[in-house]
Amino acid sequence: MASSLIRGKHLLSPAGSGDAATVLYDAAVYQEDGVIKDVGPYQSLRAQYQPDAELGGLDYAIIPGLVNAHHHGRGVTTLQMGSCDDCLELWILAGWGRRPYDHYLMTLYTALNMMASGTTTVMYNHPQTAAATLKEDVDAVLRGFLDAGMRVAFSSYLRNQNRVVYGDDREFLSGLPADLADDVRRYLSVADMTDDDYFAFFDETHRQYHNHQSGKVRALLSPANVQWNSDEFLLRAKEHAARYQTGIHMHLVESAYQKDYGMRTWGKTPVAHLQELEFLGPELSFAHAVWLTDGDIELLSDAGATVCHNASSNLRLKNGIAPVNPMLARGVNVAMGTDSTAINDDDDLLQEMRLVSKLHRQPGIDAPAVTAAQVLAMATVNAAVPTGFAGDIGALEPGRRADLALIRLDRLEDPYLEPDTPPLEVVLGRAKTQDVAAVIVDGEVLLQDGAHRRVNKDDVRRELREQLSRPLEPETLATRRMAGRLTPYVEQFYRSRTPAVGTPHYVFNSRT
Amino acid sequence: MASSLIRGKHLLSPAGSGDAATVLYDAAVYQEDGVIKDVGPYQSLRAQYQPDAELGGLDYAIIPGLVNAHHHGRGVTTLQMGSCDDCLELWILAGWGRRPYDHYLMTLYTALNMMASGTTTVMYNHPQTAAATLKEDVDAVLRGFLDAGMRVAFSSYLRNQNRVVYGDDREFLSGLPADLADDVRRYLSVADMTDDDYFAFFDETHRQYHNHQSGKVRALLSPANVQWNSDEFLLRAKEHAARYQTGIHMHLVESAYQKDYGMRTWGKTPVAHLQELEFLGPELSFAHAVWLTDGDIELLSDAGATVCHNASSNLRLKNGIAPVNPMLARGVNVAMGTDSTAINDDDDLLQEMRLVSKLHRQPGIDAPAVTAAQVLAMATVNAAVPTGFAGDIGALEPGRRADLALIRLDRLEDPYLEPDTPPLEVVLGRAKTQDVAAVIVDGEVLLQDGAHRRVNKDDVRRELREQLSRPLEPETLATRRMAGRLTPYVEQFYRSRTPAVGTPHYVFNSRT
Repeated sequence: MASSLIRGKHLLSPAGSGDAATVLYDAAVYQEDGVIKDVGPYQSLRAQYQPDAELGGLDYAIIPGLVNAHHHGRGVTTLQMGSCDDCLELWILAGWGRRPYDHYLMTLYTALNMMASGTTTVMYNHPQTAAATLKEDVDAVLRGFLDAGMRVAFSSYLRNQNRVVYGDDREFLSGLPADLADDVRRYLSVADMTDDDYFAFFDETHRQYHNHQSGKVRALLSPANVQWNSDEFLLRAKEHAARYQTGIHMHLVESAYQKDYGMRTWGKTPVAHLQELEFLGPELSFAHAVWLTDGDIELLSDAGATVCHNASSNLRLKNGIAPVNPMLARGVNVAMGTDSTAINDDDDLLQEMRLVSKLHRQPGIDAPAVTAAQVLAMATVNAAVPTGFAGDIGALEPGRRADLALIRLDRLEDPYLEPDTPPLEVVLGRAKTQDVAAVIVDGEVLLQDGAHRRVNKDDVRRELREQLSRPLEPETLATRRMAGRLTPYVEQFYRSRTPAVGTPHYVFNSRT
Repeated sequence: MASSLIRGKHLLSPAGSGDAATVLYDAAVYQEDGVIKDVGPYQSLRAQYQPDAELGGLDYAIIPGLVNAHHHGRGVTTLQMGSCDDCLELWILAGWGRRPYDHYLMTLYTALNMMASGTTTVMYNHPQTAAATLKEDVDAVLRGFLDAGMRVAFSSYLRNQNRVVYGDDREFLSGLPADLADDVRRYLSVADMTDDDYFAFFDETHRQYHNHQSGKVRALLSPANVQWNSDEFLLRAKEHAARYQTGIHMHLVESAYQKDYGMRTWGKTPVAHLQELEFLGPELSFAHAVWLTDGDIELLSDAGATVCHNASSNLRLKNGIAPVNPMLARGVNVAMGTDSTAINDDDDLLQEMRLVSKLHRQPGIDAPAVTAAQVLAMATVNAAVPTGFAGDIGALEPGRRADLALIRLDRLEDPYLEPDTPPLEVVLGRAKTQDVAAVIVDGEVLLQDGAHRRVNKDDVRRELREQLSRPLEPETLATRRMAGRLTPYVEQFYRSRTPAVGTPHYVFNSRT
């Protein structure tokens, strides 16, 4: 389709700095060849343009396509793969014995799940899979997203130190029984990759995908996290990003143990260390960032960096609640994502927006509470910033790509809705995936009434069912046994490190 | 139906003290005339009994009917009625101008919504509606629940002081413009009720309903909250409850301002004041209880009282997060409810259980995290305690009423589920209302595949739509204008009272 006019009873889009929202009544988006040409009152756009097709109507709200700003592509969830929620550091270890999967099928399935809630773009962060198959895995992942029609900011992370606990591998392994240490060394070596290899891999991926004909891929760099990467690697990543004019996406102070690592290693917070390295900058986006101090928030704000908030994941993996309100107050660009660990175990970004909107309501009349407009911005225009598609997506404005979702209003307003209720509050407060009527990327309707126009989800599910029901490889079983043996040693490592905690940003209750 | 055998791939029930759960594979419940006669392996029950009907199968999990332990019956939500989430004290005020509704229809609608998530019993707390129509309203409400087939622990609350702010009405009104004060006085007088009238009303309701032929109603007493009731009223309620051998359900330290009221009024926390009054006891259940100190928790535990946790409501109305983990650790009986203000604005108790299970995961490896078994108990056997149906509902055990729900497992386990994943974690982590296949009360299948067998929900919706779309009464519009005028004075009252806050029970982040 070359052009279309998409009408909504309400048009909801972030405006300006993200503190405000554009809310229009009986409005429309006119798009040509995937680009928004005009936004305004339906009647005047109807008079002005001759679209090839008309969509939507007065039963719908139009929102920008949502941007999931941190994700690892696990549509068949870690819970389904047998890992119950646990403290991050133990949960990572439990994941070592996870059943391997077909990256193409898994990505296709994940993309369809994400699109169900109106998500059109994802910041996908590839886990450190076996070095021998990394390129093949990544090709499969990107083919999956592209076949589903999703936009993707792709990065593949590298951990080049402290890969068992937040401490020197050699030292930690030396405290294990010799056969267990050998097994762990062998297990880790499969994913071994030199820094040179990592950057060469990036160069190749960037060449192949960054200017992909679909226009839907951006390639980013990804050190895994400050405790998992040498300073040398971090700085080289920064140089590399500058050379390619692209972004860096990484994890940061997800747990209090990660902050504690900084205090023990450098006598300062990981953010302060990054500042000292002159690593911070607007090309940086940091997932989680739960254990930020006031000073850290200042530094991130001054640097123009983005924080990708993962509310569900932070609760599920016992990491806490990120200080979103102080970040917003200080002008940090805050995005959000489900981290493949959403509250309902389904990558539903509408539900995640709702959780974020409720979680950051500090007690008392004058205490900060995140606004509906801020939450919308976090899942759209703010999240667009680190993807490499900044300015192209995240808002319903002329010149941006026509990525949007239509939300059916009937259930939300039934059996009654007080006429003056702000429509953004209603959508944010009540909309579910079942209400997502259409998902559009580059002007193309990809999902309509739950059915994907290019991919048959039932086929994908059937194939996944078949593949995943095969007997486990002896190698996977052996890895599980090894991880099981390793667990008490890892527990002991962290038990000896109870991070010091100061005054909290949020006070939700009181012992005294 | 006289008898039935209900089979599940998994049978999930709280066990013992609520810290453990019974998890059976290929098990069944055998019920006769609404009472559970046997629970055990399906094959042996199949051999032993000749049921009139068989339900369920290996595609289902069986759970006890859920118990929503605090609710005000607002199925058409306050958001739909135009009140956006706000600080409790202002949100209450906004509710003054809420559109009136038909209590029978509203209750029927609310009951159907609640049953969609497997809820079979509700602690319903009637708001202080006009005294002239209170009995009529209550009759309509109870008729609604009974027509839907739900079990209900009914109470009607009374506020006999501090009805505008947490301070003397006369004094507060004296600071308002005279005409506004007159309007407020007139508005309040509509719901005026003497203590004598309240207890006479209770006597009448108790006589009519407590031993209702359905066996599905219990009548409880309800002071609204310590700041809203005189000590005299509280003590009289306690005496009355003892005489009737029934329970008392009330709100307690929902907001920090309510705790602050206690500190200002008695120089101690509201719980300590109740202890001093010798008011506490096992017949007490307290909704919210967010701002409990360590000492308060001890007192509630020693008294054997119940706390009804309302996680969503406490976030939405800016009250905070109740210290559930310390309460559980100290042996307080903790129940849960949606308070008509659930996270998804829909009274979904499965979703509420999930929120509770994620919210109370304190950061760090050794910090407390509520377990799946504890969350199941909070929504079942613990919640049964204050309803007056303790021992009769809340667990799948011989001798209890056959109240249960069947959860379809196919979507939860699709396209894959690692065989060893604990089924309770899977249901708690992934089940949604769409997976609730059947809801059974007293052995009667009331809801099957989303359709209620006694009530046509479409008819209820249609009638509500018609009634609620009628023009607003001038009286309601006048009340709204009055509440709007009053708001800045109320805001000013609370702005001058910033409650002192000490060390929090939960530390989710850190400024330093």
